[in-house]
Amino acid sequence: MDRNEIFKYHLGGKIGVRLTKELSSLVDLCMAYTPGVAEPVRAIYSDPDSAGIYTAKANTVAVVSDGTAILGLGNLGALPSIPVMEGKAALFKVFGDVDAWPVPLANCSGKDGRTDPGKLVEYVCALAPMYGGINLEDIAAPACFEVEDRLDELLDIPVFHDDQWGTAVITLAGVMNYCRLSERSMDELRVVINGAGAAGIRIAEMLKAAGAGDVTICDSRGVVHSGRNDLSPKKKEHAVQKDAGGIEEVMTGAHVFIGVSVGNCIPSSAVSEMASFPAIFAMANPEPEIMPEAVAETMGSQPYVMATGRSDYPNQVNNVLGFPFLFRGALDTGARTINMSMKVAAAEALAKVAHLPVNGHVQSLYPDIELGFGPGYVIPKPFDPRLIVEVSAAVAEASVKSGVSRKDPGQGYREALKRRK
Amino acid sequence: MDRNEIFKYHLGGKIGVRLTKELSSLVDLCMAYTPGVAEPVRAIYSDPDSAGIYTAKANTVAVVSDGTAILGLGNLGALPSIPVMEGKAALFKVFGDVDAWPVPLANCSGKDGRTDPGKLVEYVCALAPMYGGINLEDIAAPACFEVEDRLDELLDIPVFHDDQWGTAVITLAGVMNYCRLSERSMDELRVVINGAGAAGIRIAEMLKAAGAGDVTICDSRGVVHSGRNDLSPKKKEHAVQKDAGGIEEVMTGAHVFIGVSVGNCIPSSAVSEMASFPAIFAMANPEPEIMPEAVAETMGSQPYVMATGRSDYPNQVNNVLGFPFLFRGALDTGARTINMSMKVAAAEALAKVAHLPVNGHVQSLYPDIELGFGPGYVIPKPFDPRLIVEVSAAVAEASVKSGVSRKDPGQGYREALKRRK
Repeated sequence: MDRNEIFKYHLGGKIGVRLTKELSSLVDLCMAYTPGVAEPVRAIYSDPDSAGIYTAKANTVAVVSDGTAILGLGNLGALPSIPVMEGKAALFKVFGDVDAWPVPLANCSGKDGRTDPGKLVEYVCALAPMYGGINLEDIAAPACFEVEDRLDELLDIPVFHDDQWGTAVITLAGVMNYCRLSERSMDELRVVINGAGAAGIRIAEMLKAAGAGDVTICDSRGVVHSGRNDLSPKKKEHAVQKDAGGIEEVMTGAHVFIGVSVGNCIPSSAVSEMASFPAIFAMANPEPEIMPEAVAETMGSQPYVMATGRSDYPNQVNNVLGFPFLFRGALDTGARTINMSMKVAAAEALAKVAHLPVNGHVQSLYPDIELGFGPGYVIPKPFDPRLIVEVSAAVAEASVKSGVSRKDPGQGYREALKRRK
Repeated sequence: MDRNEIFKYHLGGKIGVRLTKELSSLVDLCMAYTPGVAEPVRAIYSDPDSAGIYTAKANTVAVVSDGTAILGLGNLGALPSIPVMEGKAALFKVFGDVDAWPVPLANCSGKDGRTDPGKLVEYVCALAPMYGGINLEDIAAPACFEVEDRLDELLDIPVFHDDQWGTAVITLAGVMNYCRLSERSMDELRVVINGAGAAGIRIAEMLKAAGAGDVTICDSRGVVHSGRNDLSPKKKEHAVQKDAGGIEEVMTGAHVFIGVSVGNCIPSSAVSEMASFPAIFAMANPEPEIMPEAVAETMGSQPYVMATGRSDYPNQVNNVLGFPFLFRGALDTGARTINMSMKVAAAEALAKVAHLPVNGHVQSLYPDIELGFGPGYVIPKPFDPRLIVEVSAAVAEASVKSGVSRKDPGQGYREALKRRK
C-alpha cells in the first residue's frame, strides 16, 4: 500500500452525518425542530424507553477510546486515535448497518499516565444517553477489564471491548471448525495460548465456555501457574496447577496453539512436537508468531490448520467478522448486554458460515481463493453477505433466550437482515 | 401540525452516520483500518494540527446539552433532549453543511438538581478531541454563562451557546435594518429589553457592541438598576443608574422593545406610548409578549417594525439564520473561538441579505410572501441560499481580521460556499 494513497484516502476523514428524514420545507423545519419536536421530548420524558423509538439511539453505537493502546503503536492519546475510531465506525456501517460514532476521550489518565478506570467510566456514563451500545477500543490492559465490567454493570446497553472479545469470538469459531475437520471434540483438546493480555485472557474464557478443559496460558515469564506470585487477578483465574516449563515444552503434544503475543517467537521445532493434525493460530501483527511458510515446510504433507491476523494468507482472524454482527443482533433485540451465550452463539454461527455450501455469488467476491470448507478455509471472508444474516440472527436469538433482550425481532428477522445488507 | 405526523416523522430518529470514502474491497479495508490507518495515526501524533486534515474533526460540531432547559419545557434531563439535539444537528447539516452530532450528557447536576458547571465543563473537555466546535444547547442559566466562558478558555475550538447568542445575532440584524428604515443611528436608540435570562443579557451585550448606548433591561421585578441588591453578576453589568418604574413606564418614548420573556405581558397601551416609528421584537414562544394583530390595531397607518419568534408572521427571529453560518465560517478558517467581532459581522451580513435585491429564485422559494425590503421584511428567510454565502463569508473574514483563525480561506471562498449549498 502506498503511503500517499493512504493519506489521500484520509483527507477530511472517513465519516460524516446524514439526515434520515426529509428537511426541505418550513413544515419539515417545524416537525424536526421547534415547535413540533416538543412532542417526542414529552413522550420520552414520560417513558424513557421510547427514546429507542423516536431517536437514533437504538441503532447508534459509541466507539470509545482513550488512546492508551492504539493498534500496536502504544499510548499515543485521544487525538491520534481518531483515524482508528473513524475506521471502526465505517466498518460498523458497511458490515452491520450500525450507525457508529467515534468518541475519543481526553483526560482519562491518572498521574502515572495510565488509564484511570474511574474517570473513563464516569465520562462514558455521562455520554451514554445517545447510544444503544458502547464499543470500547484500544484501551490498555489491565484498566480495560475493570472499565468494561463496571460499565456493563452501570449501563443498560451492551458494552463490548472489541480488543478483548473480538479476536476471542473469531478464534473460537476457527477452533470449532478445526474440531470438525480433525474429528476431535472441544473437551479433549489441549490448548496453549501464548500472550496473557486482554485478548489471551478472553480467548481462554471463551474456549472454556465452549467446553475446552485443558487450556494453558503463557506470558513473557513462561506458564501462568498458581505457584507464581506475580499474577494479576485475571491471570490467577486461569493459572494451571504446575509449571510445565517454557512455551516450547507446553506446546509438545498440544492440539491447538494460539498466539496473541509478538512476531517470530515460535520456532518450527515447537510446531513439529505438537499432536498430529494440529492447529496454529499465529495472530501477532504484522508479523505472526510463526510464518505460514515455516509451518508448511515443517508439516510437509501432514494435515494442519493455520490462521493468522493477516489478509494475505488463508484464514484471517479479522475482528470485522465479529463486532458488526454482534452489535447488529444485540441492537435489534434491544439487548441490555452482550453476554457469553451471545458471544458463543456468534462463534458458532461464524463457524457454520465457513462450512455452508459456497454459492456462486460468494465465490465471485473472492475469485482468486478456493472457498470450500477445509484446512485452508475454516474462517469465513469479511464480505460474505451471509454473515450478517447468520451471525446477527444467532446473537439476537441468544439474547432473547438468555433473557437480556427488550424485544423479540420475531419471524421475519432473517429476511429483514438480508434486506439490510 | 398533526401529532401523529410528528411522531411518525421521528420514528428511528432524524440522523445517522455516512461514509465519506469508498469501502467495498479488501484494499479499502486495509486503508480505512489496519494496517494502513497507522499512517495518519502517526502523523497526528507528530503534529496534532494534522487531525484537522486526516480526520472529520474540522467539519464536525458537538451539539451538547444536559437537558436542564429544553425548549420552554424545563429541566427534563439528557434523554428527552435527544430529539432537540438531533433536530439541531439536522439543521446544521441542511443549512451549513456542518456535520453536527448530538451529545446529550447525563450526570451533570449537583445535589440541588441544577447544572454543576465544573462537571459539565470536565465532560465536554474530555470529549472535545473529535470536534472542530462545540454548540451548547438548552443549558439553564446562570450555569450556562460559566460553562461557555470556561470552555471557551480551555478549548482551542469555537464554543457557542446558541440560546445565549443565536437570538442576539438575529435580533441585532433586525435592529440594524430597523435603523436603516427609520433613518436612525444605533447610538441614538432607546432600547428596552424585557427578560434578563441568557438571551436578554446577550442581546444587550451585542447591541452595545454594535453602538447602542441606551439599553434598559427589565426582569420579573422591574428595571434592572444599580440600586437593587438581588442582581446576579451578569445583570449587574447591565444595571442602569436609577429605577424607572415598571416595564410600561420604561417603554414610554423608547424606539425598540425586545421581549425574551413570557407571552402576552405587554398591553397595547405601552406600544402606543413608544416613540414614533417604533420596533417591537416580541419573541416569547409560542405566544409573543404582544400579538402582531394587537400592535397593528394600535399603530393603525403609522409606520412600525414587528418581529416574533413564530414562522406564521413576518420577520421571524429564527436561530437557524445564525448558528449554521457562524459555525460554517468559523470552521472554514479553523477559528479558535467565535468572538464578538465575528458575531457582529454575522448580524451585519444577515441585515444585508434582507436588503439585497430579491432575485426570482429566492422569491420562488416563498411564493406567498412579498420579500421586498421594508417593515414586513427586515429579517431574511431561512431557506434563502444567499445566507450561507454572505453570513459565512463575513464570519470567516472577521475571524481572520481579529486574529483567531488558523487559516485564510482566500479568494475562492465565496464560490466554494455557493457550491456547498
